[in-house]
Amino acid sequence: MPDLKNDRFIRALLRQPVDKTPIWIMRQAGRYLPEYREVRAQAGDFMTLCSTPDLACEVTLQPLRRFDLDAAILFSDILTIPDAMGLGLYFEEGEGPKFKSPISSAADIEKLGIPDPNQELAYVMDAVSLIRKELDGKVPLIGFAGSPWTLATYMVEGGSSRSFSKIKAMLFADAKTAHALLAKLADSVAMYLNAQIEAGAQAVMVFDSWGGALTTPHYQEFSLAYMQRIVDQLTREKDGDKIPVILFTKGGGLWLDQIADTGCDALGLDWTINIGQARQQVGDRVALQGNMDPAVMATDPDTIKREAASILADFGNGSGHVFNLGHGITPGITPDNVAALVDAVHEFSIPYHQQ
Amino acid sequence: MPDLKNDRFIRALLRQPVDKTPIWIMRQAGRYLPEYREVRAQAGDFMTLCSTPDLACEVTLQPLRRFDLDAAILFSDILTIPDAMGLGLYFEEGEGPKFKSPISSAADIEKLGIPDPNQELAYVMDAVSLIRKELDGKVPLIGFAGSPWTLATYMVEGGSSRSFSKIKAMLFADAKTAHALLAKLADSVAMYLNAQIEAGAQAVMVFDSWGGALTTPHYQEFSLAYMQRIVDQLTREKDGDKIPVILFTKGGGLWLDQIADTGCDALGLDWTINIGQARQQVGDRVALQGNMDPAVMATDPDTIKREAASILADFGNGSGHVFNLGHGITPGITPDNVAALVDAVHEFSIPYHQQ
Repeated sequence: MPDLKNDRFIRALLRQPVDKTPIWIMRQAGRYLPEYREVRAQAGDFMTLCSTPDLACEVTLQPLRRFDLDAAILFSDILTIPDAMGLGLYFEEGEGPKFKSPISSAADIEKLGIPDPNQELAYVMDAVSLIRKELDGKVPLIGFAGSPWTLATYMVEGGSSRSFSKIKAMLFADAKTAHALLAKLADSVAMYLNAQIEAGAQAVMVFDSWGGALTTPHYQEFSLAYMQRIVDQLTREKDGDKIPVILFTKGGGLWLDQIADTGCDALGLDWTINIGQARQQVGDRVALQGNMDPAVMATDPDTIKREAASILADFGNGSGHVFNLGHGITPGITPDNVAALVDAVHEFSIPYHQQ
Repeated sequence: MPDLKNDRFIRALLRQPVDKTPIWIMRQAGRYLPEYREVRAQAGDFMTLCSTPDLACEVTLQPLRRFDLDAAILFSDILTIPDAMGLGLYFEEGEGPKFKSPISSAADIEKLGIPDPNQELAYVMDAVSLIRKELDGKVPLIGFAGSPWTLATYMVEGGSSRSFSKIKAMLFADAKTAHALLAKLADSVAMYLNAQIEAGAQAVMVFDSWGGALTTPHYQEFSLAYMQRIVDQLTREKDGDKIPVILFTKGGGLWLDQIADTGCDALGLDWTINIGQARQQVGDRVALQGNMDPAVMATDPDTIKREAASILADFGNGSGHVFNLGHGITPGITPDNVAALVDAVHEFSIPYHQQ
């Protein structure tokens, strides 16, 4: 593998000195890019795009051709694992993901196998290897997975939910069954991420999209404990290079201390918490990734630059910050606004990294 | 007006000694009750139900006939104010509220009048007077309104939203226009709540359903500042009785300190924060209302009792707690589960109020 030409992202996650604050954007390979919409139309459906390594590689690289981003992220979906477990993932136009065979009982859970990443999920590993090769050391490649809790919500509810009534009823009234499911998912995610690392991922991120819907004790017991179980199993170094781990609980602002204590390298922050306050809370335990409100991207370059400057100032001097939005970029954004953000972060952050 | 036979709710909000922890339930007059669904069907549409004092009174009283609740809450909707401003509120079956004429410019906002509560909103005042009379002092009556920020989201987005893209673009790129709208709404809400107090409401609550979607500085500037403006204008005592004020920001767990500093009497808590931790944070500045996860109600009486006991224990000894869910009760809940909760809270809380 060629040497990394731009290692700002990795260094910031490890809180090592950098020249500028690195930036990447959640869903940077996505519908706001006309060239993405073209490949997506070509692929027909979303899962074909995810499961065809050539196409997944192409859309992963698209944003890097336009913008001076400091990392690439594998184009895939968090629900590949439950799909590989046999639940039958599908997407209906204009709706969220759905499963043909949701989970509803302890017996269903008993039957679930832990997918072999190099068999049922070989298409993901092929995409990782191919992207890594095509990147040719330009920037690092991020691998990712959904958190066990987040995956479990889709598997039990049968798709997206706002109230999580079925799975929460399970947590409250049948915790043992929930733990059996979450343990299986944690081990599956750990194996899956380790396989991505083996295939070439240089950092990994766990997306806990729905942890923020839980009570404080349930977050600890049913979400964070299983992210801890993943962190404990991950390959943290490969060929002499550290492989940083980022944990991101959307709506997790109340629990930053506990997340930092898992031994991960960095926390993803949504936009609700002030990044300066978050830094005070976590101290030098972890780096921080985030946290601009994605709604800023719908304004204009001047507003975007002002807000970027404000977040950089809130974080303050030194390394340990990876700039990002607090959630994925939305489909209606003009690419020019993304260029304005990326350039502003690089330009405005220089003074914070001078001794 | 007759004397209040059960003043536990008012006393708890004022942190005065009580014999048991009082309880009421957000949306206690709602679709989970068959008798509600009957009156709702009779009324035809939701706004007819809200705007017909006899019907609004009937559904307000229904849950009190079934359960030993410690407060009644006016049956109405938070969007009566924008409707009275001329935006044309309507509800489509199976969807959220919508406005025929959403707001989109400074000129639109300039044209908005502050509704006279005793003219355009006289139907609400008539309902309050009638309910108060029919309650005959059984329990206190809560009046309510939406927070300025929450009302503004519906008025600018034209209905419900998840991303709040239009109004957030206004906050980021045209704050002056947003402030003009919010100031008008705050003054309208204050007049509206004072008129409800005049008509007989014995406590008032401001529902900030969407404050939790904001960044920390935006929450302070665009939501909390205008709730403060309301608190500052409210009638806090009538005929020698204090009129407590409750502020509830869903997803506001990061900002409890600042909310407590507004001078309100109590904070509503959603279910994500631990009520014991919240109490430690706010000290003796305010009472707390909440905070069981509404998902518990879909389980069984034993689970409900266990969870109620756990929240009472987390709050601990002494007055200053009004038990409630952390959000509205959902339509599918069986009334027997509600009875189990109400009785458990009364029974299990006695030891916490003995000297």
